[in-house]
Amino acid sequence: MNIATPHPLAVAEEGTTPRKISVFGATGSIGVSTLNLIRERRSAFQVEVLTAHRNVDLLAEQVREFCPRLVVIGDDARFQDLKDRLDGFPVEIAAGREAVIAAAREPVDWFMSSIVGAAGLAPTLAAIQTGTTVALANKESLVCAGDIMLSNVQKYGATLLPVDSEHNAIFQVLDDTQMDKVERLILTASGGPFLDRSRADMANVTREQALAHPNWDMGAKISIDSATMMNKGLELIEAVHLFPVGGDQVDIIVHPQSVIHSMVEYRDGSVLAQMGTPDMRTPISYALGWPERHAFKSERLDFRTLGSLEFRDPDPVRFPALRLAREALEAGGSAPTILNAANEVAVAGFLAGDIGFLQIAEVVERTLQKTEIIEYSEIDDIYSQDRKGREAALQVIKTLS
Amino acid sequence: MNIATPHPLAVAEEGTTPRKISVFGATGSIGVSTLNLIRERRSAFQVEVLTAHRNVDLLAEQVREFCPRLVVIGDDARFQDLKDRLDGFPVEIAAGREAVIAAAREPVDWFMSSIVGAAGLAPTLAAIQTGTTVALANKESLVCAGDIMLSNVQKYGATLLPVDSEHNAIFQVLDDTQMDKVERLILTASGGPFLDRSRADMANVTREQALAHPNWDMGAKISIDSATMMNKGLELIEAVHLFPVGGDQVDIIVHPQSVIHSMVEYRDGSVLAQMGTPDMRTPISYALGWPERHAFKSERLDFRTLGSLEFRDPDPVRFPALRLAREALEAGGSAPTILNAANEVAVAGFLAGDIGFLQIAEVVERTLQKTEIIEYSEIDDIYSQDRKGREAALQVIKTLS
Repeated sequence: MNIATPHPLAVAEEGTTPRKISVFGATGSIGVSTLNLIRERRSAFQVEVLTAHRNVDLLAEQVREFCPRLVVIGDDARFQDLKDRLDGFPVEIAAGREAVIAAAREPVDWFMSSIVGAAGLAPTLAAIQTGTTVALANKESLVCAGDIMLSNVQKYGATLLPVDSEHNAIFQVLDDTQMDKVERLILTASGGPFLDRSRADMANVTREQALAHPNWDMGAKISIDSATMMNKGLELIEAVHLFPVGGDQVDIIVHPQSVIHSMVEYRDGSVLAQMGTPDMRTPISYALGWPERHAFKSERLDFRTLGSLEFRDPDPVRFPALRLAREALEAGGSAPTILNAANEVAVAGFLAGDIGFLQIAEVVERTLQKTEIIEYSEIDDIYSQDRKGREAALQVIKTLS
Repeated sequence: MNIATPHPLAVAEEGTTPRKISVFGATGSIGVSTLNLIRERRSAFQVEVLTAHRNVDLLAEQVREFCPRLVVIGDDARFQDLKDRLDGFPVEIAAGREAVIAAAREPVDWFMSSIVGAAGLAPTLAAIQTGTTVALANKESLVCAGDIMLSNVQKYGATLLPVDSEHNAIFQVLDDTQMDKVERLILTASGGPFLDRSRADMANVTREQALAHPNWDMGAKISIDSATMMNKGLELIEAVHLFPVGGDQVDIIVHPQSVIHSMVEYRDGSVLAQMGTPDMRTPISYALGWPERHAFKSERLDFRTLGSLEFRDPDPVRFPALRLAREALEAGGSAPTILNAANEVAVAGFLAGDIGFLQIAEVVERTLQKTEIIEYSEIDDIYSQDRKGREAALQVIKTLS
């Protein structure tokens, strides 16, 4: 790969050198929002690498606008299509899983890890091993391989910045120099579209109903995870890796308005919270600018029209996913990997119409029950556990449907 | 005055030297809470000076417990009484206004300014001029003489720490290294006991009704100020001096539950908030420990039983005090001093049964209308303006009653 000269458009803001950045998962919801923010401060950044899994249309468009040095399409079968669309455009083009991982080793100042699912693990690890600053939207990296990621962060001097709105909220109000003064982290959960549905009703909800999140506009996988509240369970596991706390120091509270994005309670009684409209550009912008904030035009919270903010305990009967995640965290080893793999398979099964909504958690629980948990030390162990979890979950689905 | 050796009880925590502290206004609500916190970490502090205006009983008790080097009673007439009660106890005893000011010049590491009203100005200024860290609960210091206080803070290298729960909340979540990224400060107001009363009803409320604050247990003056919302008006003026913002960057929102103590909105859409139960020990503890937090046992926020948090615009018709404060801030010069003096006189008049509740704001408005505003540069100008405001307000009260 050649080291290209900076793109002529990339003239730095106020005479500083543009920051080299890569966006992995550029065509997803987080990737698109990241590029929106970069568009607003175009001269401050030099885009090095863009990747996508399959969305050739949008990826080609992004390449023409942001002029990366390298673009990678994960799905080999779309390589030619991408090449055709970028014919004559000055960009290196690659395809396939290995090419995505290799591209993550390119040195940059800031790396957005926003590939969805376990596919994000290897590129995230590769980026961490360059010692760069990694904005982490791929929660599976920490859920499945938290210990490996964190030991590599330490070994290579990398920096992890949380992009999930909850963890970003905590990051904004957590004084990590005084962790002995932190009582607990409080993750807020919207409760999703079925917050007030009976369990009987939940058994028959449709794909469309489950996808219709009341507050956030997100991808399909995370929308279903919000509906089952598995999303909050994964975030619990993520929090324990991102911040120096134990699982017993992370509480989950349902807050249907999603105005408070999460909180930190200190041992002097102070609870610090980050609030905002449900706009993922806020946490992305915080990660992009960190340690500085950057202004951008977003819809602001209007307390005059906000109505009231409510809080309640999550219902363990209708949302068993939270319990499953906490149990997997406590079991340790590869249990969270199995949890995550089974959940991915179950969500896909629900979206495909193979199982009902309540069966998502059932598939996860049964998969965990029948799968042996191992201690892991290498990323390859994670991959094999991930495969094992997926296969076991598929088996469970067969017995159900 | 002799330099006493540290009290035998004052053995430092973990081998550090105890911090020398003074509490001015020790028998008031804030003073008592401050000493409560000091009691819990007794060995970390060496109490140098305690002062009170009139409460000889409690002051003598505090002296016997906290063993200051010097105790001052503001009211000369109680000097002998205090001496009798402390007969034989190893403490220097003084009395009178000048003695309070002189005692504020004693070098300490931390100074609590919690004298109520304009009487707190001179001791606060004297403490600032020693270059120490001043925990400021006396809001009149900034309302009446903000420019003088701040120029002295700068000149003498002092540090001001806000103790008011609202300003302390802002202090906890304000990144003052990035003020260009701050959109506005949002002061929350409980709305006081008459939030939902009609104006006609408010005309006839009693002293006891006005004193019954729904959330906070405070002194009489500040309780009445909360009922008229003049308290929030004074806090607006205070905020503009404490933080580098203009009055147009400070919004006031009614939040009847007093759970969110105040907020900072940043230009990336993030709103950071400090929340807690209504316990003044939390902000006092923050100021006492700053820049570190110290754990203490307080009642914690329980989101499960919190109910809902509401927000609404303050009603300018029923609560004209807010408008008066904003007008005084905009008029500048001695206008806030006149506002404060007239308000103190009017509140005393209401408590004495001389005027009705709605007449408090009326007295303030009429006093401001008939008093010439001057530019001030010396603290003596403030005193003469304060006297002028009081005299004018008393005249207004005569015409009303």
